[in-house]
Amino acid sequence: MSDRVVGRLSVYRRLLTELLGRGVANVYSHELADLAGCTAAQVRRDLMAVGSSGTPTRGYAVAGLYERITRYLDSPGGQSVALVGVGNLGRAILAFFSGRRPKLKIVAGFDSDPEKVGRTFSGCRCFSMAEMTSVVREARIDVGIITAPADCAQEVAGALVGAGVKGILNFAPVTIHVAEDVYVEPVDMTVSLERVAFYARRGQDEGSG
Amino acid sequence: MSDRVVGRLSVYRRLLTELLGRGVANVYSHELADLAGCTAAQVRRDLMAVGSSGTPTRGYAVAGLYERITRYLDSPGGQSVALVGVGNLGRAILAFFSGRRPKLKIVAGFDSDPEKVGRTFSGCRCFSMAEMTSVVREARIDVGIITAPADCAQEVAGALVGAGVKGILNFAPVTIHVAEDVYVEPVDMTVSLERVAFYARRGQDEGSG
Repeated sequence: MSDRVVGRLSVYRRLLTELLGRGVANVYSHELADLAGCTAAQVRRDLMAVGSSGTPTRGYAVAGLYERITRYLDSPGGQSVALVGVGNLGRAILAFFSGRRPKLKIVAGFDSDPEKVGRTFSGCRCFSMAEMTSVVREARIDVGIITAPADCAQEVAGALVGAGVKGILNFAPVTIHVAEDVYVEPVDMTVSLERVAFYARRGQDEGSG
Repeated sequence: MSDRVVGRLSVYRRLLTELLGRGVANVYSHELADLAGCTAAQVRRDLMAVGSSGTPTRGYAVAGLYERITRYLDSPGGQSVALVGVGNLGRAILAFFSGRRPKLKIVAGFDSDPEKVGRTFSGCRCFSMAEMTSVVREARIDVGIITAPADCAQEVAGALVGAGVKGILNFAPVTIHVAEDVYVEPVDMTVSLERVAFYARRGQDEGSG
């Protein structure tokens, strides 16, 4: 399944959570499409891939669809996450995810700053870099978030993978290279902001041209 | 030009900045491809689109290529950015971008918390929400970053666009709807982390299957 489809499933689930909260029992593919910003055909194809098909008269049952996507996306036993680099961005991410997903929990932070080591940020304990391998192994952590500076991101990635991590969310503005069986998703805020600025300007240029 | 190409140009520029710093004069497409995590053919196609072609013997001149991409991506007069929601994530983003891009500067922050209004974060002044329209108009801000909570992101987006913003980087975990001529790039950290976790687990499942 492509990474775009997995991303959309995650978005559908968020929308279904909102609908459940509002007591909505059924939803049509075109309604999900409007909410998710894609097409109804895409929604139907994506949901078919996880084994759900709606009916033309009632659409999809919200609760059942939520369950099915969750079974597909989540590990039944949960997964543990490590975050490396407890700076401004790292702390923002710890605060953001704190208590949000019981099945996908950031269980350990790591930082080279002795002032941070031993402290707890948004419920997450910060360890020293030297403890990384043992903590990641013992807690069976398989997901890493890199919020460390660019110049040490590659080294951090290598250490995480060496300790058993199989997926990395990389916020450091640098391309990291790892073994092929490790999934890396870059979140490059500079690239994103530059792209938004480019299209914002292009709109103006077109308008004035 | 597709948003993926614009994103890669931004990545190439970051790599070229590193090469310039190390005194490297020439670079081959396959070297840029290795660094950027794409193919050499893609690099050549992308750079052709901005009017650059390398030679088989010397590749691309680093300085010239940097200039050409910059001329393509940046507005000569610079662009101003507003950030709405000066919480943990907002402050992390202000710190991250502070002084990083003279041509693309976050010039105003907005928050509903009276404790934050009037204060300066990483060199950026925080205004009240009521001041948004006038500040955005007066500073000719055309790019917005939304780090506000999900339940007010749509309202914030509407206010930004009403004041002249043409591009939005949306960190709020909700799909926002705006006029067609406004470019919206979602950065959904939950979607990204769930996707990384999904592929991390799939790797394990395959390994044990």
